[in-house]
Amino acid sequence: MAGETHHAISTGQTDSKFGLSPDDARVAIARLRDAPHLDPVGLHFHIGSQLFELEPFRAAVRTLASLGDFPVYNVGGGLGVAYTAADHPPAVADYVEAIVSTIHSELGADKRLLLEPGRALVANSAVTLYTVQTIKRNVSTWVAVDGGMSDNLRPMLYGSKYEALVADRAAAAAEERCKLAGKHCESGDVIVRDAWLAAPAPGDVIATPVTGAYGFSLANNYNGVPRPPVVFCRDGDARVVVRRESYEDLAGRDVV
Amino acid sequence: MAGETHHAISTGQTDSKFGLSPDDARVAIARLRDAPHLDPVGLHFHIGSQLFELEPFRAAVRTLASLGDFPVYNVGGGLGVAYTAADHPPAVADYVEAIVSTIHSELGADKRLLLEPGRALVANSAVTLYTVQTIKRNVSTWVAVDGGMSDNLRPMLYGSKYEALVADRAAAAAEERCKLAGKHCESGDVIVRDAWLAAPAPGDVIATPVTGAYGFSLANNYNGVPRPPVVFCRDGDARVVVRRESYEDLAGRDVV
Repeated sequence: MAGETHHAISTGQTDSKFGLSPDDARVAIARLRDAPHLDPVGLHFHIGSQLFELEPFRAAVRTLASLGDFPVYNVGGGLGVAYTAADHPPAVADYVEAIVSTIHSELGADKRLLLEPGRALVANSAVTLYTVQTIKRNVSTWVAVDGGMSDNLRPMLYGSKYEALVADRAAAAAEERCKLAGKHCESGDVIVRDAWLAAPAPGDVIATPVTGAYGFSLANNYNGVPRPPVVFCRDGDARVVVRRESYEDLAGRDVV
Repeated sequence: MAGETHHAISTGQTDSKFGLSPDDARVAIARLRDAPHLDPVGLHFHIGSQLFELEPFRAAVRTLASLGDFPVYNVGGGLGVAYTAADHPPAVADYVEAIVSTIHSELGADKRLLLEPGRALVANSAVTLYTVQTIKRNVSTWVAVDGGMSDNLRPMLYGSKYEALVADRAAAAAEERCKLAGKHCESGDVIVRDAWLAAPAPGDVIATPVTGAYGFSLANNYNGVPRPPVVFCRDGDARVVVRRESYEDLAGRDVV
């Protein structure tokens, strides 16, 4: 069962590196039940990431129910989040209701349920802050910042869209259509292709919201760029929870 | 001037984050020459990466020559390398001859020339070794290994093609068409989509040649996977030059 999303983060197709088709799953379950030292207690599915429709989850539960009765079901992750104002993900309550009601009607109310809503929990918790280094105008207005695909690979890997704003005048009219370019040595290193910014200038801090999922975990040292720090903020307080990477760190595994 | 390559690593288009168009370059050069404390001594171009034709380099030199006469010219990089048997890059000697002869005829034989052939120097120097963890057959034969997009992002970023072979029987008939899948949590994590392998089995070591450029530099810790070591080998000797990353390394910047 595959939900509608980017092919790289869709799962559950017949020809997938992940999981088993329902027919293959039946064979595997029978083998597990026949094995003297194994006691299968539940089933797991994951139908894809960054999904905005609930029906694929219901359909997946119905398919699970056809595979037998178990005490535990892990329905994986996949609940989408809003990266831009154009994204309208389901409410968490509606997502949970869709899963739980389908499990109840298909399998009964006595099941133990596990969910893996990682992105939905953390994506909106973070913003990435860049500093503008230079601005160039040709066909586009290129706003070049001190980061890019070393701290956020999602635009390059999946064409993911983000918004951007000038941090100290977030409420100002964002009248200039810009390309927010990273500092790395390839043309694909563009963080936001349609960034509407309020009179950006070198030295400005640019914020890109919704970088709490898959930014830190996909970070790398392309072009020898050290990874940025992670700072937790709340109610006017802030503390560093992951320190900035140093050039000494970059060479820390070298054997001399 | 843009060469024919993947859009993410093509440079020199009119609407590019890199460089200046010839008209803008003329303005910039005039400003540099008028600046009392600056003495422009040369020009630099970079027309793209992984190029297989020489004419774009000649055309770029001709455009450079139209911008004035300088003592130094840096013609950047871009010479392609063979990732698979289907790739036929120019010989290094032909590449150098194309650049040098065009510089000589357009600008004279007294210029200092700089080249940046990084990929052409190092890509073929390295192979990546994986161990097969499991094999699954559905529509395809999925050979799952203990690495993937954390050590080689090029297939996922650019659709780059690699070859693969079973290390201890590299000369055997490679009769099974496989998908060499990485261990990371997305369907896009497939290192080689058409890997012909000789009866692969769990425990086999799989080699993917030509990973000496952009593998190490784009490596990351996706899914908390520590980065592999780098080993230099020659004439039967081997030494670790970058040690394997540890779980302690992964948490090394955490502030507790």
